[in-house]
Amino acid sequence: MAPNNPIYQEAFSKYKDKIIDGRLISGKIESGLYGRVLGLKKKGIIPSVSVILVEGDKASSIYVRNKELSAQRCDILSQKYSYPATVTERELLNKIDELNNDTLVHGILVQVPLPAHISEKNIMNAISPLKDVDGFHPLNAGKIFTGDSPFYPCTPYGIIKMLEFYDITVKGKNCAIIGQSNIVGKPLSIMLMNRLATVMSLNIFTENIKGFTRKADILISAAGKPGLVDGSFIKKGCVVIDVGISRVGGKIRGDADFEGIIDKVSKITPVPGGVGPVTVSILMENTIKAAELLK
Amino acid sequence: MAPNNPIYQEAFSKYKDKIIDGRLISGKIESGLYGRVLGLKKKGIIPSVSVILVEGDKASSIYVRNKELSAQRCDILSQKYSYPATVTERELLNKIDELNNDTLVHGILVQVPLPAHISEKNIMNAISPLKDVDGFHPLNAGKIFTGDSPFYPCTPYGIIKMLEFYDITVKGKNCAIIGQSNIVGKPLSIMLMNRLATVMSLNIFTENIKGFTRKADILISAAGKPGLVDGSFIKKGCVVIDVGISRVGGKIRGDADFEGIIDKVSKITPVPGGVGPVTVSILMENTIKAAELLK
Repeated sequence: MAPNNPIYQEAFSKYKDKIIDGRLISGKIESGLYGRVLGLKKKGIIPSVSVILVEGDKASSIYVRNKELSAQRCDILSQKYSYPATVTERELLNKIDELNNDTLVHGILVQVPLPAHISEKNIMNAISPLKDVDGFHPLNAGKIFTGDSPFYPCTPYGIIKMLEFYDITVKGKNCAIIGQSNIVGKPLSIMLMNRLATVMSLNIFTENIKGFTRKADILISAAGKPGLVDGSFIKKGCVVIDVGISRVGGKIRGDADFEGIIDKVSKITPVPGGVGPVTVSILMENTIKAAELLK
Repeated sequence: MAPNNPIYQEAFSKYKDKIIDGRLISGKIESGLYGRVLGLKKKGIIPSVSVILVEGDKASSIYVRNKELSAQRCDILSQKYSYPATVTERELLNKIDELNNDTLVHGILVQVPLPAHISEKNIMNAISPLKDVDGFHPLNAGKIFTGDSPFYPCTPYGIIKMLEFYDITVKGKNCAIIGQSNIVGKPLSIMLMNRLATVMSLNIFTENIKGFTRKADILISAAGKPGLVDGSFIKKGCVVIDVGISRVGGKIRGDADFEGIIDKVSKITPVPGGVGPVTVSILMENTIKAAELLK
Protein backbone atom coordinates (compact mmCIF):
# COMPACT_ATOMS: atom_id res chain seq x y z
CA MET A 1 0.00 0.00 0.00
CA ALA A 2 2.91 2.40 -0.65
CA PRO A 3 1.61 5.70 -1.94
CA ASN A 4 2.66 6.98 -5.34
CA ASN A 5 2.94 10.57 -4.26
CA PRO A 6 6.64 11.44 -4.78
CA ILE A 7 6.69 14.06 -2.01
CA TYR A 8 5.35 11.43 0.36
CA GLN A 9 7.94 8.88 -0.77
CA GLU A 10 10.71 11.43 -0.31
CA ALA A 11 9.38 12.30 3.13
CA PHE A 12 9.62 8.72 4.20
CA SER A 13 13.18 8.19 3.05
CA LYS A 14 14.55 11.57 3.99
CA TYR A 15 12.72 12.20 7.26
CA LYS A 16 12.07 8.67 8.44
CA ASP A 17 12.73 9.45 12.11
CA LYS A 18 10.27 12.31 12.13
CA ILE A 19 7.35 10.62 10.42
CA ILE A 20 4.36 9.41 12.40
CA ASP A 21 3.57 6.61 10.00
CA GLY A 22 -0.21 6.21 9.82
CA ARG A 23 -0.01 3.22 7.50
CA LEU A 24 2.36 1.41 9.85
CA ILE A 25 0.08 2.04 12.85
CA SER A 26 -3.00 1.14 10.86
CA GLY A 27 -1.31 -2.14 9.88
CA LYS A 28 -0.50 -2.90 13.51
CA ILE A 29 -4.08 -2.16 14.59
CA GLU A 30 -5.46 -4.34 11.80
CA SER A 31 -3.04 -7.16 12.68
CA GLY A 32 -4.24 -7.00 16.26
CA LEU A 33 -7.81 -7.53 15.06
CA TYR A 34 -7.25 -10.83 13.21
CA GLY A 35 -7.32 -12.90 16.39
CA ARG A 36 -10.50 -11.23 17.55
CA VAL A 37 -12.19 -11.81 14.17
CA LEU A 38 -11.14 -15.45 14.39
CA GLY A 39 -12.53 -15.74 17.91
CA LEU A 40 -15.86 -14.36 16.73
CA LYS A 41 -15.97 -16.69 13.73
CA LYS A 42 -15.37 -19.69 15.96
CA LYS A 43 -18.61 -18.69 17.66
CA GLY A 44 -20.36 -18.42 14.32
CA ILE A 45 -20.27 -14.61 14.30
CA ILE A 46 -19.07 -12.83 11.17
CA PRO A 47 -18.34 -9.21 12.12
CA SER A 48 -20.21 -6.95 9.76
CA VAL A 49 -20.36 -3.22 9.13
CA SER A 50 -22.97 -1.45 7.01
CA VAL A 51 -22.05 1.83 5.37
CA ILE A 52 -24.66 4.26 4.09
CA LEU A 53 -23.39 6.62 1.43
CA VAL A 54 -25.32 9.46 -0.13
CA GLU A 55 -23.71 10.11 -3.48
CA GLY A 56 -22.46 13.47 -4.65
CA ASP A 57 -19.48 14.16 -2.41
CA LYS A 58 -16.36 12.89 -4.17
CA ALA A 59 -14.25 12.72 -1.00
CA SER A 60 -16.97 10.71 0.77
CA SER A 61 -16.85 8.07 -1.96
CA ILE A 62 -13.09 7.73 -1.49
CA TYR A 63 -13.42 7.48 2.31
CA VAL A 64 -16.08 4.79 1.98
CA ARG A 65 -13.88 2.90 -0.49
CA ASN A 66 -10.99 3.01 2.01
CA LYS A 67 -13.28 1.65 4.69
CA GLU A 68 -14.35 -1.21 2.43
CA LEU A 69 -10.72 -2.07 1.67
CA SER A 70 -9.81 -2.04 5.36
CA ALA A 71 -12.81 -4.29 6.13
CA GLN A 72 -11.59 -6.71 3.44
CA ARG A 73 -8.11 -6.81 4.95
CA CYS A 74 -9.57 -7.46 8.41
CA ASP A 75 -11.97 -10.13 7.15
CA ILE A 76 -14.94 -8.02 8.22
CA LEU A 77 -18.06 -8.16 6.11
CA SER A 78 -18.89 -4.74 4.73
CA GLN A 79 -22.09 -3.81 2.98
CA LYS A 80 -22.50 -0.49 1.21
CA TYR A 81 -25.86 1.15 0.63
CA SER A 82 -25.64 3.99 -1.89
CA TYR A 83 -28.36 6.55 -2.32
CA PRO A 84 -28.75 9.41 -4.79
CA ALA A 85 -28.40 12.97 -3.44
CA THR A 86 -32.19 13.28 -3.71
CA VAL A 87 -32.79 10.60 -1.06
CA THR A 88 -35.18 11.67 1.71
CA GLU A 89 -34.39 11.64 5.42
CA ARG A 90 -37.26 9.17 5.86
CA GLU A 91 -35.69 6.70 3.42
CA LEU A 92 -32.39 6.82 5.32
CA LEU A 93 -34.16 6.47 8.66
CA ASN A 94 -36.03 3.43 7.34
CA LYS A 95 -32.77 1.82 6.24
CA ILE A 96 -31.17 2.58 9.62
CA ASP A 97 -34.17 1.06 11.36
CA GLU A 98 -33.83 -2.08 9.24
CA LEU A 99 -30.10 -2.33 10.00
CA ASN A 100 -30.69 -1.68 13.73
CA ASN A 101 -32.97 -4.72 13.75
CA ASP A 102 -30.72 -6.93 11.67
CA THR A 103 -28.88 -9.19 14.12
CA LEU A 104 -26.24 -9.97 11.49
CA VAL A 105 -25.18 -6.30 11.32
CA HIS A 106 -22.85 -5.13 14.11
CA GLY A 107 -21.79 -1.69 12.97
CA ILE A 108 -23.67 1.03 11.12
CA LEU A 109 -22.18 4.22 9.81
CA VAL A 110 -23.56 7.00 7.69
CA GLN A 111 -20.86 8.84 5.78
CA VAL A 112 -21.02 12.59 6.38
CA PRO A 113 -21.50 15.25 5.13
CA LEU A 114 -25.10 14.67 4.14
CA PRO A 115 -27.10 16.87 1.73
CA ALA A 116 -28.53 19.98 3.38
CA HIS A 117 -32.13 18.69 3.30
CA ILE A 118 -31.21 15.86 5.68
CA SER A 119 -30.62 16.44 9.40
CA GLU A 120 -27.35 14.79 10.37
CA LYS A 121 -28.50 14.97 13.97
CA ASN A 122 -31.67 12.98 13.29
CA ILE A 123 -29.65 10.41 11.38
CA MET A 124 -26.99 10.01 14.07
CA ASN A 125 -29.60 9.78 16.83
CA ALA A 126 -31.43 7.02 14.91
CA ILE A 127 -28.47 4.62 14.84
CA SER A 128 -28.61 2.14 17.72
CA PRO A 129 -25.97 3.13 20.31
CA LEU A 130 -24.91 -0.52 20.30
CA LYS A 131 -24.05 -0.34 16.58
CA ASP A 132 -22.77 3.26 16.57
CA VAL A 133 -19.20 2.47 15.43
CA ASP A 134 -18.59 6.13 14.52
CA GLY A 135 -19.28 7.13 18.13
CA PHE A 136 -21.58 10.02 17.22
CA HIS A 137 -24.74 8.92 19.03
CA PRO A 138 -25.23 11.23 22.03
CA LEU A 139 -25.32 8.32 24.48
CA ASN A 140 -21.82 7.31 23.39
CA ALA A 141 -20.60 10.89 22.96
CA GLY A 142 -21.73 11.64 26.52
CA LYS A 143 -19.55 8.83 27.79
CA ILE A 144 -16.50 10.58 26.38
CA PHE A 145 -16.72 12.90 29.40
CA THR A 146 -16.47 9.99 31.84
CA GLY A 147 -13.97 8.14 29.66
CA ASP A 148 -16.01 4.98 29.23
CA SER A 149 -17.56 5.19 25.80
CA PRO A 150 -17.75 1.83 24.01
CA PHE A 151 -17.09 3.59 20.69
CA TYR A 152 -14.91 6.68 20.59
CA PRO A 153 -15.12 8.78 17.40
CA CYS A 154 -12.57 7.29 15.02
CA THR A 155 -10.43 10.30 14.15
CA PRO A 156 -9.77 11.66 17.66
CA TYR A 157 -9.31 8.15 19.03
CA GLY A 158 -6.94 7.38 16.17
CA ILE A 159 -4.93 10.48 17.10
CA ILE A 160 -4.67 9.28 20.70
CA LYS A 161 -3.49 5.88 19.43
CA MET A 162 -0.88 7.50 17.18
CA LEU A 163 0.55 9.51 20.06
CA GLU A 164 0.61 6.41 22.25
CA PHE A 165 2.31 4.38 19.52
CA TYR A 166 5.23 6.81 19.52
CA ASP A 167 5.25 7.13 23.32
CA ILE A 168 4.28 10.78 23.16
CA THR A 169 2.73 11.54 26.55
CA VAL A 170 0.09 14.25 26.78
CA LYS A 171 -0.23 14.66 30.57
CA GLY A 172 0.91 18.16 31.46
CA LYS A 173 1.72 18.91 27.82
CA ASN A 174 0.41 21.88 25.89
CA CYS A 175 -1.91 20.61 23.18
CA ALA A 176 -3.35 23.03 20.64
CA ILE A 177 -6.28 21.97 18.47
CA ILE A 178 -7.23 24.07 15.46
CA GLY A 179 -10.90 23.41 14.73
CA GLN A 180 -13.89 22.82 16.99
CA SER A 181 -16.01 20.34 15.03
CA ASN A 182 -18.21 17.68 16.62
CA ILE A 183 -16.25 15.01 14.74
CA VAL A 184 -12.69 15.98 15.69
CA GLY A 185 -11.99 19.13 17.70
CA LYS A 186 -14.58 18.91 20.48
CA PRO A 187 -14.32 15.19 21.32
CA LEU A 188 -10.53 15.27 21.00
CA SER A 189 -10.33 18.16 23.45
CA ILE A 190 -12.23 16.13 26.06
CA MET A 191 -10.18 13.00 25.37
CA LEU A 192 -7.00 15.02 25.94
CA MET A 193 -8.43 16.51 29.15
CA ASN A 194 -9.18 12.96 30.31
CA ARG A 195 -5.44 12.35 29.93
CA LEU A 196 -4.63 15.53 31.91
CA ALA A 197 -3.31 17.57 29.00
CA THR A 198 -3.46 21.32 28.88
CA VAL A 199 -5.76 21.98 25.93
CA MET A 200 -6.00 25.05 23.72
CA SER A 201 -9.06 24.90 21.48
CA LEU A 202 -8.76 27.37 18.60
CA ASN A 203 -11.00 28.47 15.74
CA ILE A 204 -11.07 31.01 12.91
CA PHE A 205 -12.14 33.74 15.33
CA THR A 206 -9.14 33.17 17.59
CA GLU A 207 -7.13 36.37 17.88
CA ASN A 208 -3.40 35.95 17.32
CA ILE A 209 -3.68 32.20 16.81
CA LYS A 210 0.09 31.83 16.58
CA GLY A 211 0.35 33.11 20.15
CA PHE A 212 -1.34 29.84 21.10
CA THR A 213 0.06 27.39 18.57
CA ARG A 214 3.63 28.46 19.37
CA LYS A 215 3.10 27.33 22.94
CA ALA A 216 2.03 23.86 21.78
CA ASP A 217 4.08 20.73 22.44
CA ILE A 218 1.51 18.94 20.31
CA LEU A 219 -0.39 20.76 17.56
CA ILE A 220 -3.41 19.08 15.99
CA SER A 221 -4.73 20.89 12.96
CA ALA A 222 -8.21 20.10 11.66
CA ALA A 223 -8.84 23.32 9.80
CA GLY A 224 -8.98 22.02 6.21
CA LYS A 225 -6.78 24.89 5.03
CA PRO A 226 -3.86 23.57 3.01
CA GLY A 227 -0.51 24.97 4.09
CA LEU A 228 -1.99 26.90 7.04
CA VAL A 229 0.50 25.54 9.57
CA ASP A 230 3.81 27.00 8.48
CA GLY A 231 7.02 27.59 10.41
CA SER A 232 5.62 30.67 12.11
CA PHE A 233 2.90 28.57 13.79
CA ILE A 234 5.10 26.19 15.71
CA LYS A 235 7.86 26.03 18.24
CA LYS A 236 10.94 23.89 17.69
CA GLY A 237 10.44 20.27 18.66
CA CYS A 238 6.65 20.39 18.32
CA VAL A 239 4.67 17.30 17.32
CA VAL A 240 2.27 18.06 14.46
CA ILE A 241 -0.83 15.93 13.83
CA ASP A 242 -2.35 16.94 10.52
CA VAL A 243 -6.04 16.10 10.18
CA GLY A 244 -6.56 18.35 7.15
CA ILE A 245 -7.34 16.76 3.82
CA SER A 246 -7.68 19.14 0.89
CA ARG A 247 -7.39 18.67 -2.83
CA VAL A 248 -5.00 21.14 -4.45
CA GLY A 249 -4.31 20.78 -8.16
CA GLY A 250 -5.29 17.13 -8.11
CA LYS A 251 -3.10 16.36 -5.13
CA ILE A 252 -4.07 15.62 -1.53
CA ARG A 253 -2.68 18.17 0.92
CA GLY A 254 -2.86 18.56 4.66
CA ASP A 255 -3.06 21.70 6.79
CA ALA A 256 0.69 21.60 7.38
CA ASP A 257 3.32 23.08 5.11
CA PHE A 258 5.20 19.77 5.41
CA GLU A 259 8.43 20.73 3.64
CA GLY A 260 8.47 24.12 5.33
CA ILE A 261 8.23 22.81 8.90
CA ILE A 262 9.87 19.37 8.77
CA ASP A 263 13.18 20.72 10.15
CA LYS A 264 11.42 22.36 13.07
CA VAL A 265 9.12 19.52 14.19
CA SER A 266 10.11 16.49 16.25
CA LYS A 267 7.33 14.36 14.72
CA ILE A 268 4.71 14.91 12.05
CA THR A 269 1.95 12.96 10.33
CA PRO A 270 2.16 13.02 6.52
CA VAL A 271 -0.93 13.61 4.36
CA PRO A 272 -1.78 11.16 2.90
CA GLY A 273 -0.58 8.30 5.06
CA GLY A 274 -1.11 9.83 8.47
CA VAL A 275 -4.36 10.27 10.36
CA GLY A 276 -6.53 8.88 7.52
CA PRO A 277 -5.54 5.20 7.57
CA VAL A 278 -5.55 5.08 11.37
CA THR A 279 -9.07 6.53 11.46
CA VAL A 280 -10.26 3.76 9.16
CA SER A 281 -8.67 0.98 11.19
CA ILE A 282 -10.23 2.35 14.40
CA LEU A 283 -13.57 2.00 12.66
CA MET A 284 -12.78 -1.69 12.13
CA GLU A 285 -11.77 -2.05 15.77
CA ASN A 286 -15.06 -0.45 16.81
CA THR A 287 -16.96 -2.85 14.53
CA ILE A 288 -15.30 -5.87 16.10
CA LYS A 289 -15.97 -4.47 19.55
CA ALA A 290 -19.64 -4.04 18.60
CA ALA A 291 -19.76 -7.69 17.47
CA GLU A 292 -18.08 -8.81 20.69
CA LEU A 293 -20.44 -6.76 22.85
CA LEU A 294 -23.51 -8.03 21.00
CA LYS A 295 -22.51 -11.67 21.13
CA MET B 1 -31.49 37.81 50.95
CA ALA B 2 -28.56 40.14 51.58
CA PRO B 3 -25.62 38.20 52.94
CA ASN B 4 -24.21 39.01 56.33
CA ASN B 5 -20.60 38.61 55.29
CA PRO B 6 -19.06 42.08 55.80
CA ILE B 7 -16.47 41.63 53.04
CA TYR B 8 -19.27 40.76 50.66
CA GLN B 9 -21.30 43.79 51.74
CA GLU B 10 -18.32 46.03 51.28
CA ALA B 11 -17.67 44.55 47.86
CA PHE B 12 -21.17 45.42 46.78
CA SER B 13 -21.06 48.99 47.91
CA LYS B 14 -17.49 49.77 46.96
CA TYR B 15 -17.20 47.85 43.69
CA LYS B 16 -20.79 47.81 42.53
CA ASP B 17 -19.94 48.29 38.86
CA LYS B 18 -17.54 45.40 38.84
CA ILE B 19 -19.67 42.81 40.58
CA ILE B 20 -21.37 40.05 38.64
CA ASP B 21 -24.25 39.76 41.06
CA GLY B 22 -25.25 36.11 41.27
CA ARG B 23 -28.15 36.81 43.62
CA LEU B 24 -29.56 39.43 41.26
CA ILE B 25 -29.34 37.06 38.27
CA SER B 26 -30.72 34.19 40.30
CA GLY B 27 -33.67 36.40 41.29
CA LYS B 28 -34.31 37.30 37.65
CA ILE B 29 -34.20 33.63 36.61
CA GLU B 30 -36.55 32.66 39.41
CA SER B 31 -38.94 35.52 38.52
CA GLY B 32 -39.00 34.27 34.96
CA LEU B 33 -40.10 30.86 36.20
CA TYR B 34 -43.25 31.96 38.04
CA GLY B 35 -45.33 32.23 34.87
CA ARG B 36 -44.22 28.79 33.76
CA VAL B 37 -45.05 27.27 37.14
CA LEU B 38 -48.46 28.91 36.92
CA GLY B 39 -48.99 27.55 33.42
CA LEU B 40 -48.18 24.05 34.64
CA LYS B 41 -50.47 24.36 37.65
CA LYS B 42 -53.36 25.41 35.43
CA LYS B 43 -52.90 22.04 33.74
CA GLY B 44 -52.91 20.30 37.11
CA ILE B 45 -49.15 19.76 37.10
CA ILE B 46 -47.17 20.67 40.21
CA PRO B 47 -43.49 20.78 39.24
CA SER B 48 -41.56 18.58 41.60
CA VAL B 49 -37.90 17.82 42.24
CA SER B 50 -36.57 14.97 44.36
CA VAL B 51 -33.18 15.34 45.97
CA ILE B 52 -31.20 12.38 47.24
CA LEU B 53 -28.65 13.24 49.89
CA VAL B 54 -26.14 10.89 51.44
CA GLU B 55 -25.21 12.39 54.76
CA GLY B 56 -21.68 13.08 55.90
CA ASP B 57 -20.51 15.89 53.64
CA LYS B 58 -21.25 19.19 55.36
CA ALA B 59 -21.08 21.27 52.18
CA SER B 60 -23.53 18.91 50.45
CA SER B 61 -26.09 19.49 53.19
CA ILE B 62 -25.80 23.24 52.70
CA TYR B 63 -26.15 22.94 48.92
CA VAL B 64 -29.23 20.77 49.30
CA ARG B 65 -30.72 23.27 51.76
CA ASN B 66 -30.14 26.08 49.23
CA LYS B 67 -31.89 24.02 46.56
CA GLU B 68 -34.87 23.45 48.85
CA LEU B 69 -35.10 27.18 49.59
CA SER B 70 -34.96 28.05 45.90
CA ALA B 71 -37.67 25.47 45.17
CA GLN B 72 -39.83 27.09 47.86
CA ARG B 73 -39.37 30.53 46.30
CA CYS B 74 -40.28 29.16 42.86
CA ASP B 75 -43.30 27.26 44.16
CA ILE B 76 -41.72 23.97 43.12
CA LEU B 77 -42.37 20.93 45.27
CA SER B 78 -39.11 19.55 46.63
CA GLN B 79 -38.72 16.25 48.39
CA LYS B 80 -35.50 15.32 50.15
CA TYR B 81 -34.43 11.73 50.75
CA SER B 82 -31.58 11.50 53.24
CA TYR B 83 -29.50 8.39 53.67
CA PRO B 84 -26.73 7.56 56.14
CA ALA B 85 -23.19 7.29 54.76
CA THR B 86 -23.50 3.50 55.07
CA VAL B 87 -26.26 3.34 52.44
CA THR B 88 -25.64 0.78 49.69
CA GLU B 89 -25.56 1.53 45.98
CA ARG B 90 -28.48 -0.87 45.55
CA GLU B 91 -30.63 1.11 48.00
CA LEU B 92 -29.97 4.33 46.08
CA LEU B 93 -30.64 2.61 42.75
CA ASN B 94 -33.94 1.28 44.11
CA LYS B 95 -34.98 4.77 45.19
CA ILE B 96 -33.98 6.20 41.80
CA ASP B 97 -35.99 3.48 40.09
CA GLU B 98 -39.02 4.35 42.22
CA LEU B 99 -38.65 8.07 41.43
CA ASN B 100 -38.13 7.35 37.71
CA ASN B 101 -41.50 5.60 37.71
CA ASP B 102 -43.31 8.20 39.79
CA THR B 103 -45.23 10.38 37.33
CA LEU B 104 -45.56 13.12 39.96
CA VAL B 105 -41.76 13.56 40.09
CA HIS B 106 -40.24 15.64 37.26
CA GLY B 107 -36.66 16.12 38.36
CA ILE B 108 -34.27 13.83 40.23
CA LEU B 109 -30.87 14.77 41.51
CA VAL B 110 -28.35 12.97 43.63
CA GLN B 111 -26.08 15.34 45.51
CA VAL B 112 -22.40 14.55 44.88
CA PRO B 113 -19.83 13.65 46.11
CA LEU B 114 -21.00 10.21 47.15
CA PRO B 115 -19.15 7.89 49.56
CA ALA B 116 -16.33 5.93 47.89
CA HIS B 117 -18.20 2.61 48.01
CA ILE B 118 -20.87 3.96 45.64
CA SER B 119 -20.22 4.43 41.93
CA GLU B 120 -21.30 7.93 40.92
CA LYS B 121 -21.35 6.73 37.32
CA ASN B 122 -23.84 3.94 38.06
CA ILE B 123 -26.02 6.38 39.96
CA MET B 124 -26.00 9.05 37.25
CA ASN B 125 -26.69 6.49 34.51
CA ALA B 126 -29.68 5.17 36.46
CA ILE B 127 -31.57 8.48 36.53
CA SER B 128 -34.07 8.72 33.67
CA PRO B 129 -32.65 11.14 31.06
CA LEU B 130 -36.08 12.80 31.08
CA LYS B 131 -35.72 13.65 34.78
CA ASP B 132 -31.98 14.30 34.76
CA VAL B 133 -32.14 17.94 35.87
CA ASP B 134 -28.44 17.97 36.75
CA GLY B 135 -27.59 17.08 33.13
CA PHE B 136 -25.11 14.34 34.06
CA HIS B 137 -26.74 11.39 32.28
CA PRO B 138 -24.57 10.49 29.26
CA LEU B 139 -27.47 10.88 26.83
CA ASN B 140 -27.88 14.51 27.91
CA ALA B 141 -24.14 15.11 28.30
CA GLY B 142 -23.61 13.85 24.73
CA LYS B 143 -26.04 16.47 23.47
CA ILE B 144 -23.79 19.19 24.85
CA PHE B 145 -21.57 18.56 21.80
CA THR B 146 -24.40 19.28 19.38
CA GLY B 147 -25.78 22.07 21.56
CA ASP B 148 -29.24 20.60 22.02
CA SER B 149 -29.26 19.05 25.47
CA PRO B 150 -32.59 19.44 27.27
CA PHE B 151 -30.72 19.83 30.59
CA TYR B 152 -27.30 21.45 30.65
CA PRO B 153 -25.27 20.92 33.82
CA CYS B 154 -26.29 23.69 36.19
CA THR B 155 -22.96 25.31 37.03
CA PRO B 156 -21.54 25.70 33.50
CA TYR B 157 -24.93 26.73 32.14
CA GLY B 158 -25.26 29.22 34.98
CA ILE B 159 -21.89 30.68 34.02
CA ILE B 160 -23.05 31.09 30.41
CA LYS B 161 -26.18 32.85 31.70
CA MET B 162 -24.14 35.16 33.92
CA LEU B 163 -21.95 36.21 31.00
CA GLU B 164 -25.03 36.77 28.84
CA PHE B 165 -26.71 38.80 31.57
CA TYR B 166 -23.83 41.28 31.53
CA ASP B 167 -23.55 41.22 27.71
CA ILE B 168 -20.10 39.66 27.86
CA THR B 169 -19.65 37.98 24.48
CA VAL B 170 -17.41 34.94 24.26
CA LYS B 171 -17.08 34.51 20.48
CA GLY B 172 -13.44 35.01 19.56
CA LYS B 173 -12.56 35.74 23.19
CA ASN B 174 -9.82 33.97 25.11
CA CYS B 175 -11.44 31.91 27.86
CA ALA B 176 -9.26 30.11 30.39
CA ILE B 177 -10.79 27.42 32.58
CA ILE B 178 -8.86 26.15 35.59
CA GLY B 179 -10.12 22.65 36.35
CA GLN B 180 -11.21 19.77 34.11
CA SER B 181 -13.99 18.12 36.10
CA ASN B 182 -17.00 16.39 34.56
CA ILE B 183 -19.27 18.77 36.45
CA VAL B 184 -17.73 22.11 35.47
CA GLY B 185 -14.53 22.25 33.42
CA LYS B 186 -15.21 19.73 30.66
CA PRO B 187 -18.83 20.59 29.86
CA LEU B 188 -18.13 24.32 30.14
CA SER B 189 -15.26 24.03 27.66
CA ILE B 190 -17.60 22.46 25.09
CA MET B 191 -20.34 25.01 25.80
CA LEU B 192 -17.83 27.81 25.18
CA MET B 193 -16.61 26.12 21.97
CA ASN B 194 -20.25 25.97 20.82
CA ARG B 195 -20.22 29.76 21.18
CA LEU B 196 -16.97 30.01 19.18
CA ALA B 197 -14.72 31.01 22.06
CA THR B 198 -11.03 30.23 22.16
CA VAL B 199 -10.75 27.87 25.12
CA MET B 200 -7.75 27.14 27.32
CA SER B 201 -8.39 24.16 29.58
CA LEU B 202 -5.88 24.07 32.44
CA ASN B 203 -5.14 21.70 35.30
CA ILE B 204 -2.64 21.23 38.10
CA PHE B 205 -0.13 19.70 35.68
CA THR B 206 -0.20 22.75 33.41
CA GLU B 207 3.28 24.20 33.09
CA ASN B 208 3.48 27.94 33.62
CA ILE B 209 -0.25 28.28 34.14
CA LYS B 210 0.00 32.08 34.34
CA GLY B 211 1.28 32.10 30.77
CA PHE B 212 -2.23 30.96 29.86
CA THR B 213 -4.39 32.77 32.39
CA ARG B 214 -2.74 36.12 31.57
CA LYS B 215 -3.99 35.74 27.99
CA ALA B 216 -7.57 35.27 29.19
CA ASP B 217 -10.31 37.81 28.53
CA ILE B 218 -12.50 35.59 30.70
CA LEU B 219 -11.00 33.43 33.45
CA ILE B 220 -13.14 30.74 35.06
CA SER B 221 -11.56 29.17 38.09
CA ALA B 222 -12.90 25.88 39.42
CA ALA B 223 -9.82 24.74 41.27
CA GLY B 224 -11.09 24.85 44.85
CA LYS B 225 -7.89 26.54 46.01
CA PRO B 226 -8.70 29.66 48.02
CA GLY B 227 -6.77 32.72 46.88
CA LEU B 228 -5.14 30.93 43.94
CA VAL B 229 -6.08 33.58 41.40
CA ASP B 230 -4.08 36.62 42.46
CA GLY B 231 -3.01 39.67 40.50
CA SER B 232 -0.20 37.76 38.80
CA PHE B 233 -2.74 35.42 37.14
CA ILE B 234 -4.74 37.96 35.20
CA LYS B 235 -4.45 40.71 32.66
CA LYS B 236 -6.04 44.09 33.21
CA GLY B 237 -9.71 44.18 32.25
CA CYS B 238 -10.20 40.45 32.63
CA VAL B 239 -13.57 38.99 33.67
CA VAL B 240 -13.20 36.53 36.54
CA ILE B 241 -15.81 33.83 37.21
CA ASP B 242 -15.04 32.19 40.53
CA VAL B 243 -16.47 28.69 40.91
CA GLY B 244 -14.33 27.83 43.92
CA ILE B 245 -16.01 27.34 47.26
CA SER B 246 -13.69 26.63 50.17
CA ARG B 247 -14.08 27.02 53.88
CA VAL B 248 -11.23 28.96 55.47
CA GLY B 249 -11.43 29.74 59.18
CA GLY B 250 -15.21 29.37 59.17
CA LYS B 251 -15.61 31.65 56.18
CA ILE B 252 -16.54 30.80 52.59
CA ARG B 253 -13.83 31.75 50.14
CA GLY B 254 -13.48 31.47 46.39
CA ASP B 255 -10.44 30.74 44.24
CA ALA B 256 -9.92 34.45 43.60
CA ASP B 257 -8.01 36.81 45.84
CA PHE B 258 -10.96 39.20 45.55
CA GLU B 259 -9.49 42.23 47.30
CA GLY B 260 -6.14 41.72 45.58
CA ILE B 261 -7.49 41.68 42.01
CA ILE B 262 -10.60 43.87 42.16
CA ASP B 263 -8.75 46.88 40.74
CA LYS B 264 -7.45 44.86 37.80
CA VAL B 265 -10.63 43.05 36.75
CA SER B 266 -13.47 44.51 34.69
CA LYS B 267 -16.00 42.14 36.26
CA ILE B 268 -15.88 39.48 38.94
CA THR B 269 -18.25 37.10 40.71
CA PRO B 270 -18.12 37.33 44.50
CA VAL B 271 -18.02 34.21 46.68
CA PRO B 272 -20.58 33.78 48.17
CA GLY B 273 -23.24 35.42 46.03
CA GLY B 274 -21.82 34.62 42.60
CA VAL B 275 -21.95 31.33 40.75
CA GLY B 276 -23.65 29.45 43.61
CA PRO B 277 -27.11 31.03 43.59
CA VAL B 278 -27.27 31.02 39.79
CA THR B 279 -26.42 27.30 39.73
CA VAL B 280 -29.34 26.62 42.05
CA SER B 281 -31.83 28.62 40.01
CA ILE B 282 -30.75 26.83 36.81
CA LEU B 283 -31.65 23.61 38.60
CA MET B 284 -35.14 25.01 39.15
CA GLU B 285 -35.37 26.04 35.50
CA ASN B 286 -34.35 22.52 34.47
CA THR B 287 -37.01 21.07 36.78
CA ILE B 288 -39.72 23.19 35.22
CA LYS B 289 -38.48 22.26 31.76
CA ALA B 290 -38.66 18.59 32.74
CA ALA B 291 -42.25 19.08 33.89
CA GLU B 292 -43.12 20.90 30.66
CA LEU B 293 -41.50 18.21 28.51
CA LEU B 294 -43.25 15.41 30.40
CA LYS B 295 -46.70 16.99 30.21
